[in-house]
Amino acid sequence: MAALEAAEFLHVSTPKSWVGQASNCQPLLLIDHANCERKAASSALSMIYRYEERCDFAVQLSRIVREEMRHFEQVHALLKTLQIEYVHLSPSKYARALHSYAREHSPTKFDDLLIASIIEARSYERFELLEEVLEGRVAKLYGRLKESEQRHFLAYLDMAVRLEEETVINVRVQELLNQEAQLITHFDDQFRFHSGDPGDTKG
Amino acid sequence: MAALEAAEFLHVSTPKSWVGQASNCQPLLLIDHANCERKAASSALSMIYRYEERCDFAVQLSRIVREEMRHFEQVHALLKTLQIEYVHLSPSKYARALHSYAREHSPTKFDDLLIASIIEARSYERFELLEEVLEGRVAKLYGRLKESEQRHFLAYLDMAVRLEEETVINVRVQELLNQEAQLITHFDDQFRFHSGDPGDTKG
Repeated sequence: MAALEAAEFLHVSTPKSWVGQASNCQPLLLIDHANCERKAASSALSMIYRYEERCDFAVQLSRIVREEMRHFEQVHALLKTLQIEYVHLSPSKYARALHSYAREHSPTKFDDLLIASIIEARSYERFELLEEVLEGRVAKLYGRLKESEQRHFLAYLDMAVRLEEETVINVRVQELLNQEAQLITHFDDQFRFHSGDPGDTKG
Repeated sequence: MAALEAAEFLHVSTPKSWVGQASNCQPLLLIDHANCERKAASSALSMIYRYEERCDFAVQLSRIVREEMRHFEQVHALLKTLQIEYVHLSPSKYARALHSYAREHSPTKFDDLLIASIIEARSYERFELLEEVLEGRVAKLYGRLKESEQRHFLAYLDMAVRLEEETVINVRVQELLNQEAQLITHFDDQFRFHSGDPGDTKG
């Protein structure tokens, strides 16, 4: 599964209306993005425990935790520079919906790795789109971060392939990607970094 | 509260019998130590969310998470070098007992910070003792790590003092230290990095 490109791996592209909304809601985008980095670190950390018998995963996951926390600090620094006040935001439905789908539909022991891989791929795709439409420091940061997302996307897929036959992984990943595509294309009235289609936002 | 020395802050010293047991159980000590670093990172990460309204804590806690994960990787590298096979270990009663005591006895919003501070101080004290009695790479690593424990011990105390009057903090910290002293001096049949008195281990 090497040499896969994160954005090509996904079943659907981010709706244009989401990109438009993101440009108009930069403070919200950045605050939710900081939360996403924290949650990505937390998810990698919990996987060290969940896949405890795999010592080869431990150090790889630990490095991902450190990298996500570094990004968290970078987004926090940007919030400060741009004088955006941090406010509490409810989390996006996206990751929770993916995990609950996995739990309900024949859960596998590598689902967490595949879901983490998909989230990294989607983040890559959105950073790439945002880098084009945003400006200044935000665009610059997003340009830098997307390289990590591509790396993490492949790292999680690779861990899954070390647990199970590639053909089995491929079937499961397609099921999860179908589910992810629905979350991305369906109407979502709540704007977040991973939210779905906001519909016609000019209205 | 600045310039406090971690080992002097504690109410009791580690029993000599624990140090003897640790020298005889290095593989167990190192495996449990790796788990402690992961749990310290996890605890700092969860505090970012718990004290979400304190943006000044976020970056400080994030750096602690990264440092703990770096230590986790260092202990894992040492396990590999010493050809110690990782096995699952049940966690020590220590941290759980401290947290449950805090929850049951007039919980305060800064308890998590004080408990983290106490755990860092105890780790400092044990690293210092172990550096003396152990040899080679393990002693070297423990010598290096104790400096971080001293820093984290003060950082957590400092965060608590930014939340509440120092006199209030002092009263609460003494209560928690009394409780910690009991955990350290009472008989404990399970050896771990933070376990209590193993009794006469020669018999």
